[in-house]
Amino acid sequence: MKLYGEDNPAPNPRRVRIFLAEKGAAVEHVRVPLRERAHKAEAFLEKNSLGQVPVLELDDGSFLSESVSICRYLDGLYPDPPLFGDTPKAQATIDMWIRRIEFQLMAPIAHIWRHTHPLTAGLLTQFKDFGESNRAHADRVYRWLDGELADRTFIAGPAYSMADIVALTTVDFGRMIGVAVPEDCSRVLAWLDHVSRRPSAAA
Amino acid sequence: MKLYGEDNPAPNPRRVRIFLAEKGAAVEHVRVPLRERAHKAEAFLEKNSLGQVPVLELDDGSFLSESVSICRYLDGLYPDPPLFGDTPKAQATIDMWIRRIEFQLMAPIAHIWRHTHPLTAGLLTQFKDFGESNRAHADRVYRWLDGELADRTFIAGPAYSMADIVALTTVDFGRMIGVAVPEDCSRVLAWLDHVSRRPSAAA
Repeated sequence: MKLYGEDNPAPNPRRVRIFLAEKGAAVEHVRVPLRERAHKAEAFLEKNSLGQVPVLELDDGSFLSESVSICRYLDGLYPDPPLFGDTPKAQATIDMWIRRIEFQLMAPIAHIWRHTHPLTAGLLTQFKDFGESNRAHADRVYRWLDGELADRTFIAGPAYSMADIVALTTVDFGRMIGVAVPEDCSRVLAWLDHVSRRPSAAA
Repeated sequence: MKLYGEDNPAPNPRRVRIFLAEKGAAVEHVRVPLRERAHKAEAFLEKNSLGQVPVLELDDGSFLSESVSICRYLDGLYPDPPLFGDTPKAQATIDMWIRRIEFQLMAPIAHIWRHTHPLTAGLLTQFKDFGESNRAHADRVYRWLDGELADRTFIAGPAYSMADIVALTTVDFGRMIGVAVPEDCSRVLAWLDHVSRRPSAAA
């Protein structure tokens, strides 16, 4: 197996890095220099026609993209500890929380990034009013998440899971582009402090 | 088990209906009348704090939301035919395609729905220019998907899967709100014709 573009600062490559660190596993890495637009070059588009990193090349020469799907595949190869759940209910609950974090929280943060940030201004047409409207939206989602965390330590239940990895990379990306966790979201902040202390968070 | 809000016309409840039809399975159904805002009432928010349908109540009294996660859970109970894949590679590939359809195709269609459609105008602040910009985006995604379908019958490979269910409900929802499949996307149209002829498509 080979993992392409794992070393980029965006949330998706970091998900795979944290996942591998939690597993104590390593996969051969191939650099994809985004600044040189290597992810949009023909050679890379044959690996992922969407031109996105990371990509996992399997031993049979086929390619897998989407960070969560790559981690789901690796979870089968490195089952200990299980990060996608070890019972049907845990598996579905972790899957639900991955989706909730992506659709509820990553979506407004991504809109803020794409539609308000100077670094993306040259890459696409920005709709700034729309982008700015997502700040209040992200705040509301953080308050909803804060309520959800009342009864548990981690995002999807009593155990650390892929949902925590997706949430940590999302929250940290938000902070990097100026979307802070509201100060009154004490449970989210406690969770963030807790998962950030794990050695994998440095990945 | 009980399934709440399965009978609504939105894409997510339909995913579960098609899934159950493909499995030849049935789950007790509880109506959630959206027109009466029953999904935003306290009693329902205890089942899904996001106020979204469908929701699956498990036999232990816990609740699961997110249509794909509900289907993933049901796939374990009704494994034949497997709609989330029966090998690690197939499972990851189907997962990748579910994500690609949702993030690439459902996202612009949802933006068009939320930000341009008269039926949503009273429910949220519409950013019409942003919404309209997603029409060209959806066209580009359809052309990308058309290229992807060059080598296979179904979205994620040679077998019908959950990715086809997610894609069919997305494409049909787009058509319902005026986002057509471009006429030159002959492979997407052939796939659509093919999967629409399955009895489950009427669900």
